[in-house]
Amino acid sequence: MRIAIAQMNPIVGDIVGNTRAIIDRISQARQAGASLVVFPELSVVGYPPRDLLLKPRFIQANVEAARQIAERCVGISAIIGFVEHNKEPDGRRLRNSVAYCRDCQIREVRHKSLLPTYDVFDEQRYFEPGPGVSSIEHDGIRLGVSICEDLWNDEQLIGRRIYHQDPIGQLAAAGARLLINSSASPFWLDKHAFRQRLFGHQASKHHLPIIFVNQVGGNDELIFDGASMMIDAQGRVVAQAKAFDEDLLIVDTDMPSGARIEPYPDSLASLHDALVLGVRDYTAKCGFNRVVLGLSGGIDSAVTAALAAAALGPDHVTGVAMPSRYSSEHSVTDAEALARNLGIHYKVIAIRAMHETFEEHLKPHFEGRAPDVTEENIQARIRGVLLMALSNKFGCLLLTTGNKSELAVGYCTLYGDMCGGLAVISDVPKTTIYKLAEYINSKTGREVIPRNTITKPPSAELRPNQTDQDSLPSYELLDAILDKYIHQELSADEIVAAGHDARIVQKVIRLVDTAEYKRKQAALGLKVTSRAFGFGRRMPIAARFRY
Amino acid sequence: MRIAIAQMNPIVGDIVGNTRAIIDRISQARQAGASLVVFPELSVVGYPPRDLLLKPRFIQANVEAARQIAERCVGISAIIGFVEHNKEPDGRRLRNSVAYCRDCQIREVRHKSLLPTYDVFDEQRYFEPGPGVSSIEHDGIRLGVSICEDLWNDEQLIGRRIYHQDPIGQLAAAGARLLINSSASPFWLDKHAFRQRLFGHQASKHHLPIIFVNQVGGNDELIFDGASMMIDAQGRVVAQAKAFDEDLLIVDTDMPSGARIEPYPDSLASLHDALVLGVRDYTAKCGFNRVVLGLSGGIDSAVTAALAAAALGPDHVTGVAMPSRYSSEHSVTDAEALARNLGIHYKVIAIRAMHETFEEHLKPHFEGRAPDVTEENIQARIRGVLLMALSNKFGCLLLTTGNKSELAVGYCTLYGDMCGGLAVISDVPKTTIYKLAEYINSKTGREVIPRNTITKPPSAELRPNQTDQDSLPSYELLDAILDKYIHQELSADEIVAAGHDARIVQKVIRLVDTAEYKRKQAALGLKVTSRAFGFGRRMPIAARFRY
Repeated sequence: MRIAIAQMNPIVGDIVGNTRAIIDRISQARQAGASLVVFPELSVVGYPPRDLLLKPRFIQANVEAARQIAERCVGISAIIGFVEHNKEPDGRRLRNSVAYCRDCQIREVRHKSLLPTYDVFDEQRYFEPGPGVSSIEHDGIRLGVSICEDLWNDEQLIGRRIYHQDPIGQLAAAGARLLINSSASPFWLDKHAFRQRLFGHQASKHHLPIIFVNQVGGNDELIFDGASMMIDAQGRVVAQAKAFDEDLLIVDTDMPSGARIEPYPDSLASLHDALVLGVRDYTAKCGFNRVVLGLSGGIDSAVTAALAAAALGPDHVTGVAMPSRYSSEHSVTDAEALARNLGIHYKVIAIRAMHETFEEHLKPHFEGRAPDVTEENIQARIRGVLLMALSNKFGCLLLTTGNKSELAVGYCTLYGDMCGGLAVISDVPKTTIYKLAEYINSKTGREVIPRNTITKPPSAELRPNQTDQDSLPSYELLDAILDKYIHQELSADEIVAAGHDARIVQKVIRLVDTAEYKRKQAALGLKVTSRAFGFGRRMPIAARFRY
Repeated sequence: MRIAIAQMNPIVGDIVGNTRAIIDRISQARQAGASLVVFPELSVVGYPPRDLLLKPRFIQANVEAARQIAERCVGISAIIGFVEHNKEPDGRRLRNSVAYCRDCQIREVRHKSLLPTYDVFDEQRYFEPGPGVSSIEHDGIRLGVSICEDLWNDEQLIGRRIYHQDPIGQLAAAGARLLINSSASPFWLDKHAFRQRLFGHQASKHHLPIIFVNQVGGNDELIFDGASMMIDAQGRVVAQAKAFDEDLLIVDTDMPSGARIEPYPDSLASLHDALVLGVRDYTAKCGFNRVVLGLSGGIDSAVTAALAAAALGPDHVTGVAMPSRYSSEHSVTDAEALARNLGIHYKVIAIRAMHETFEEHLKPHFEGRAPDVTEENIQARIRGVLLMALSNKFGCLLLTTGNKSELAVGYCTLYGDMCGGLAVISDVPKTTIYKLAEYINSKTGREVIPRNTITKPPSAELRPNQTDQDSLPSYELLDAILDKYIHQELSADEIVAAGHDARIVQKVIRLVDTAEYKRKQAALGLKVTSRAFGFGRRMPIAARFRY
């Protein structure tokens, strides 16, 4: 049986556009001789649709679109993802569903059983789980069709089973001969290797091949990496679609050895490619084609600029140096060198005059108090005003350049350097930013990011001779503690027991906890780890805790 | 049987402080001769604890606190809310539970069956539902103990049953003689009257009295209004605790006629009191005792200032007028009159010099382009920088003053007038702001909010002779359309069919949809309606939809 895997990049909510894209791929798959084409989870509406699901007309339009798509299924069958009304009198009103379309009709509908409700996933907010599973007969073969999380209840690999059902086991027991999983599985670092292990384990456990069809593209903070696969009944990858790009992958299930196996980039390269895709799609899907960002001469803005140039082309990127009275000579020369190396537009706007005017007008109100962080923040906020003015005037998206380590400890200014629509590297720890800079230079084979930017001590340059390490431990140490506190959810005691200095641990934890209010108002940030700040991490603000 | 209803105001995460408060109230209840004292839902940790629940040490500390509390139950029993580990091998790790404590021990534990996962509630993210219900025997009486949502599955009053279980019906069938519901039920307008109807309906349906124990206080955007109640078996309110304040209400279940029935404020008064409590608690629970806000001479900042003065005392509030070259004479005189009427601190900082300096330094970069919204935003952002400087220098919380109508259509400047830690009235439509202003004046019996502030046409004063109605329909019309689009989730077609002009409806909807990116970075806003922007409304940003 020849199956086409339609790894597509939908726009959330764009039912008309997504429907058109699905119909196009049905034609292409038919021309390629496929008898079945499979689409990602909720492909008609794009994943995640969030509270658009609460709009009755939106659901109605998606049901009509699914019918229209079915009408195009002539000489080929298709499995598409859509939202179906729950026809039972009780329970939530909607189901996360797939339609099996054949001969111009929706012949079968199946529902997602396991509804992820953790991290960035909120599916129990919207959906009623499927009442049970059963196979679908296609050309004499029983297909066991499931949706994304349905395949992720493997206690041997995942640990505790949070669901009471095992839809894959049930499909296997019911006689399915081929498992098909329609997914929207977002990227995070090293997740793809885990997927291969997990799916391989499921395939070999049930002695059944698995076809995994993933969404690709950036939707808000989530980046879907594609890399759809066929796994054979022995658990081996026998076909794999492109990572971070659309693809139509054809597999002959009886003779899969002829299929393409596209390479998946290694860890650092996947991080780079994910961020590039995230910037490209957020920018385009918000209707922009140009971005602007501040260039401090430091490594964070340099890496962000390089990612933006890779995403949009250098001609669509403007970097702005905004030196203050405390800026070093190299802050501007390094920024300028970076802009030249990347070929992006470059502007310089000194902030001294604005800074002095604010100081003068605030002086009578500051009652002779000593300078403190207030004065540092004013500089950062003047830069925010300037960048937003350029963004407004020229209709370009402002990118914010802070890294995850800074955002964790609140080493950033709200309404200052935190201004922007998209935080490109806010889920990348500072120590990884350095690796990413080296990767970018080695990939291009020349010094794109100036050597001095990589080697000089990091500094916010908001007071004379300041460096980040005046206020913070070394980034190696900071990132190690943050990983334990934020990713592993360890307590202070446990982190100290792991060998860290108690005073430093207490300080870092206090900084993290008291910065929740800043993160509440942070720009949307691209998620590349399993525990990112943002939608998937929901902390109270007016709270008191020490654990 | 004498029961004490301990309507307390916990701090989220403050297990030590909440435990102390619970133990104090146990003593007070014992002194009042109660045989049982009942606390709100999750009283040990405060509601909602959100992702603190993912910290294993936090859960452990809450279990230890529950044991400590039980040890204080000598001569009295207590029902307290806490988080219990799920002891089953499958399913989520935690349960939302109550402990029945007696003679120094936790004698019984019961679990929440219905886990709200909609709007601001995320309980299926954390908890496994209880495996079933059973009554608890206390002094020879069978108590049917449930937790909050367990009581809210009444299809006759709520419509569709989203849950398959009916824990209250099961408790009644199992022979419970008195229903006790431990809750954390947040305020929104007119919800209390609905609670009375709903609980009354449940009580009379099952011929059982209900004791409803609510949390009180503001926790981030949620305001819990208290007003705990006893409903008799005929569905009548026979006891009611204070609204918007802590209380220890004693009821004799055999002879409830002697109990206090505190009045619940009418609709507008409840809105006022809710906002005052929300400001007071967010400020204090974040560790502040002073606030600052911009005063434009307009009604939004005037109402916000009056609420802040009521919450914290006028001496803890500073209003700042920041006139620009486009500000009318009355903008400053009205602000000054307001400050004088309220007795708050008052400052004036003209922004002209900052404005000119920015213009001068941006001119070479604006390439002779015509003035547009860019220039308007610069003024709003200069004000944001000034207010944040005062907030930073004097350690006071900046309140933001935008209303819900503005926030809906994006008639506000990100990093400008949207700066601030708490948006006091961002869930109050403009038309209701006027009513609130009149209420404040009538309540105090004098002109606190200047008459001119109430009667003049609303204006952002960001360009010469601007008024809000240059860009927007009248607020009566706008609020009517917004209510249909945002609260009722009607589509454009349906709103037009309800009698509105199609062009205006399309425009308003377009403004709402394209302002999601601003709301993503908005200050936390006090929720006073059933559909507020913020945590409970989760919209995609890089999306395209027209429904």
